[in-house]
Amino acid sequence: MALIVQKYGGSSVGDARKIKDVARRVKDTYEGGNDVVVVLSAMGGETDRLLDLARNITDQPDEREQDVLISTGEQVSISLLAMRLKSLGMDAVSLLAHQVKIETDSEFGKARILEIDPDNMLGELQHRKILIVAGFQGVDATGNITTLGRGGSDTSAVAIAAALNADICEIYTDVEGVFTTDPNVCPDARKLDKISYDEMLEMASLGAKVLQTRSVEFAKKFRVPIHVRSSFQDSTGTFVIEENRDMESAIVSGVAYNKDEAKITVTKVPNRPGTASKLFTPISDANIVVDMIIQNVGADGLTDLTFTVPKTDFEKALGLVEVTAREIGAQGVLADRNISKVSIIGVGMRSHSGVASRMFAALADEGINIMMISTSEIKISCVIKSKYTELAVRVLHDAFGLGEEKEI
Amino acid sequence: MALIVQKYGGSSVGDARKIKDVARRVKDTYEGGNDVVVVLSAMGGETDRLLDLARNITDQPDEREQDVLISTGEQVSISLLAMRLKSLGMDAVSLLAHQVKIETDSEFGKARILEIDPDNMLGELQHRKILIVAGFQGVDATGNITTLGRGGSDTSAVAIAAALNADICEIYTDVEGVFTTDPNVCPDARKLDKISYDEMLEMASLGAKVLQTRSVEFAKKFRVPIHVRSSFQDSTGTFVIEENRDMESAIVSGVAYNKDEAKITVTKVPNRPGTASKLFTPISDANIVVDMIIQNVGADGLTDLTFTVPKTDFEKALGLVEVTAREIGAQGVLADRNISKVSIIGVGMRSHSGVASRMFAALADEGINIMMISTSEIKISCVIKSKYTELAVRVLHDAFGLGEEKEI
Repeated sequence: MALIVQKYGGSSVGDARKIKDVARRVKDTYEGGNDVVVVLSAMGGETDRLLDLARNITDQPDEREQDVLISTGEQVSISLLAMRLKSLGMDAVSLLAHQVKIETDSEFGKARILEIDPDNMLGELQHRKILIVAGFQGVDATGNITTLGRGGSDTSAVAIAAALNADICEIYTDVEGVFTTDPNVCPDARKLDKISYDEMLEMASLGAKVLQTRSVEFAKKFRVPIHVRSSFQDSTGTFVIEENRDMESAIVSGVAYNKDEAKITVTKVPNRPGTASKLFTPISDANIVVDMIIQNVGADGLTDLTFTVPKTDFEKALGLVEVTAREIGAQGVLADRNISKVSIIGVGMRSHSGVASRMFAALADEGINIMMISTSEIKISCVIKSKYTELAVRVLHDAFGLGEEKEI
Repeated sequence: MALIVQKYGGSSVGDARKIKDVARRVKDTYEGGNDVVVVLSAMGGETDRLLDLARNITDQPDEREQDVLISTGEQVSISLLAMRLKSLGMDAVSLLAHQVKIETDSEFGKARILEIDPDNMLGELQHRKILIVAGFQGVDATGNITTLGRGGSDTSAVAIAAALNADICEIYTDVEGVFTTDPNVCPDARKLDKISYDEMLEMASLGAKVLQTRSVEFAKKFRVPIHVRSSFQDSTGTFVIEENRDMESAIVSGVAYNKDEAKITVTKVPNRPGTASKLFTPISDANIVVDMIIQNVGADGLTDLTFTVPKTDFEKALGLVEVTAREIGAQGVLADRNISKVSIIGVGMRSHSGVASRMFAALADEGINIMMISTSEIKISCVIKSKYTELAVRVLHDAFGLGEEKEI
């Protein structure tokens, strides 16, 4: 007998029929002798519908009140699943964040979980109840409703699994698991049987949107094993777990890409202490997240400084940089929206040499020019012209043998 | 400066435009120097939409979970109004039942308010905040969400006004106030300036559906003055207040009718102790509310016993009565769905004689036969054939001079 946390996303509870399917799966799991805690998202499309209501009321919805509004989405889905399970004769009970309770900070719209009280839930589980918990939401120290940001239900599920010391956290979604790359780009992309937390973090933050990044950080910190799987079939998905020796035999586990960034270059910056700080402080003050930063000092004491920002913040960042560039005496500012980032990820890189050169060679063979490079212990990213994105992904997927059926 | 509780029903917050209108009115009241607590219903149609979701899930939704579900309706409306007020620069905050807190018993779907803690609200009011409280909902002793039943937001508002010792509880609705009778039936029906709690109770329970009966009971018990008024215009509505000498000058304040009952007669019941109890126990066990009961003992020691039940429970009640009638040796059971009840209400009846005979004469003049009569201190009701309902209402409205413009 195990304690299993199951999280179902919006597409898995999108209508009455799907909620009934979820109920059947929960019932089967429970009747297999397990304790079950279910974490739900809002029904697909519901959060957007609620946000539209708010936008009809005001252009700038107050963040506290917006959280009160959109947290109703999960309240609806948990009550529906609980009543379905009860109609099947199961002893189920829905729980809101303040009933659990899931305490967060007071950053409305992007709150962080501080603590989850396991006692209420453990008490109910001892009576063999099935608990249906609202994902995405929390309650701050003074009792205000908070939400965790898009995809926050993943984090709710992992945090609850951690608090309860659950045996597994199953994340049900509309894909079969984590793939070596996007199957829409690469038809021979392969489902991974397992992947380490660190690899998953790199995959997620690079745009492979299966799991919310923060949920993986949480899982890593508290060593919660995650099983990403399809809610539409019963097959095994991908286990996201602690790194182990097996994983090192594969050099690269996956290829990720991200088309949502743009590139800004400040040319001929006088190379003086404090220059970078002057450049990036206004950007971070504007809450713009800078991803890659590259700087090379030339022989003339002048340097070109290039960085990437999300495309949504591009215009704003460019405006800020143009002001600062003049102040610090740089020659000019170049900008490029037509870029993308392709990355290879794998814990095997730690113990294998030559991975980077193999990546560069594979891209060069197709005549793809590399504009920026950045590396971490388990990841190498290259910025290229965006028109080459799909080609680059396929080339790298091939070059590291990811399409072949083999042990990872 | 006064402390004003304002309650807006579903039709008053039905869409974004109407919510903006409510915000303007709340702002005006606040800027007039008053403290304002707003109690809202769900947006019109929302509760029915949520109940439909439940019915797609199961025929018999669990009552606890249904309350979790439908209480989201008010959560949505209070958050929208609060964000609208904030966008207008007002310091508003939405509050759910568990945040207030509004404690009820655990009768899901028809919970009763046990206690409202005034301290949270008074603390916020001292900071000159506008409080937007979810109507219709409460929280039981163990933290479950409860709802108060249809129209429960009226009761929420009155109970909150009582807890805060508010100066007035304004109930905004889609009519101008309480009328002498249904204006759709009687074109010269007149808006009443004031009406006593007892009269309002009789009006409400007899089918004049402006205020939920329970809210009036609450108002009477705690002496909360109510002002029923239109949310679509600024005119004065009807004050529902304690009885005073002025009111006695009018004999009759209003004429009410109810078409939702049906009549059952058990004929030639042997007149033995315990007969009535045998007859009505199965009916009350089935949660059927019996309204009027009339029994006349004849010279032969046999009696006819007639009573009315809601039309919705008619078939069920009839089935139960037919069984019992055989058991107690009655001759038979007669049933009639085509009846209605017309009533005149007025505290003036206490000090005026001849009111009943005037009513009976007015009906007789039009050839309307009276099938049942029941009286209370301030009300006389007659059951008649339902085809005469509108005629009877008009005749009585005229007979007691209610259409004339005069002091009540």
